[in-house]
Amino acid sequence: MNTIKLTSRQEQIIELVKDHEPITSEKLASKLSVTRAALRPDLAILTMTGILDAKPKVGYIYSRKPSYSLVYDYIRNIKVNDIMSKPVIVDENTTVYDAIVHLFLNDVGTLFVENDGSLTGAVSRKDFLKMAMGGTDMHKVPVGIIMTRMPNIVFVEKDDVAYSAAQKIIEHEVDSLPVIERVSDNGKEFLKIVGKISKTNVTRLFVKMGSNK
Amino acid sequence: MNTIKLTSRQEQIIELVKDHEPITSEKLASKLSVTRAALRPDLAILTMTGILDAKPKVGYIYSRKPSYSLVYDYIRNIKVNDIMSKPVIVDENTTVYDAIVHLFLNDVGTLFVENDGSLTGAVSRKDFLKMAMGGTDMHKVPVGIIMTRMPNIVFVEKDDVAYSAAQKIIEHEVDSLPVIERVSDNGKEFLKIVGKISKTNVTRLFVKMGSNK
Repeated sequence: MNTIKLTSRQEQIIELVKDHEPITSEKLASKLSVTRAALRPDLAILTMTGILDAKPKVGYIYSRKPSYSLVYDYIRNIKVNDIMSKPVIVDENTTVYDAIVHLFLNDVGTLFVENDGSLTGAVSRKDFLKMAMGGTDMHKVPVGIIMTRMPNIVFVEKDDVAYSAAQKIIEHEVDSLPVIERVSDNGKEFLKIVGKISKTNVTRLFVKMGSNK
Repeated sequence: MNTIKLTSRQEQIIELVKDHEPITSEKLASKLSVTRAALRPDLAILTMTGILDAKPKVGYIYSRKPSYSLVYDYIRNIKVNDIMSKPVIVDENTTVYDAIVHLFLNDVGTLFVENDGSLTGAVSRKDFLKMAMGGTDMHKVPVGIIMTRMPNIVFVEKDDVAYSAAQKIIEHEVDSLPVIERVSDNGKEFLKIVGKISKTNVTRLFVKMGSNK
């Protein structure tokens, strides 16, 4: 892991900028009793890291949004594969009742549905609750009847950027997406379900990113 | 917003390190036909920002986890207030049926429950689905009967760090937390519900952090 260890002079500069912003390099140099030339490398590092902002003809100011582009780079390097979890899969012919039992046993919010080894749908707590309100007989109706069906399922692949999966979750207002692998068999293409990525995975990633380790 | 604009020489150095890691500063200098001294400021910036790692007696390597501590600082500066959304609140005496209608009309996953203006509970899609499976009469039973009740509700306040709210969500395995404000009235303390923070808010924040703007 990389941590940025600032020197004590760099820390001093940050404190001075916080107290006196905007402040020119001349004033900083005089407050620290050094030459401007001596400060140049420190100021370069502090602006490059985004801790300070240099405003031409005004001076240095302290940045409240440090290192945005580094956060950006960090986030864009995480793959779906790095944070996905195990999917819970049922067959289209599973009864709604049995499907809900699977939902509770695995403590998940969404089940993915397949037929002949290929993704055909998804069904969530919300779908089940809607069905329960409607008085459908859950012991008779198969999950294939109430699920959201392909091609209306948004999915991602293992090597996709986790960020774009999170974007799709927000954009399509779903709790989770299936992670699929394209498999060819005798010229026919299957969408094999190999994982899932949910708001929980993204929240867990956020917690990991903000943790001290 | 602060962006780090690398110079073209810094970009060249990164490419050389990616291709030849670990690589010493001597070798980098010779490949770029410059002196080691001329490279020193660039290498300082690239290691300070965490883009490169310097291994003593081995050389420079490209870091796959850039600038971890800056990501950390960035995350820890976001408050609950910055990302919370409007809560959907029902009274304890609302019937389960009416509560589910509220859930669907507002398209949320959790309702917060109050009594006399103070937080008393929370009820989620999962609770409603469990109740529906059990065959409870939703037109008769009030939501107060099936909700999770205080003091078993984890909550946060506006000025708490969003990161710690995310941590609580993961730790307590809930979808969302009420944001409360402590109000005193005649010596009695009320927990006024002023917002909610959910996995959706955290995912939206993640998307914002990774966006180009």
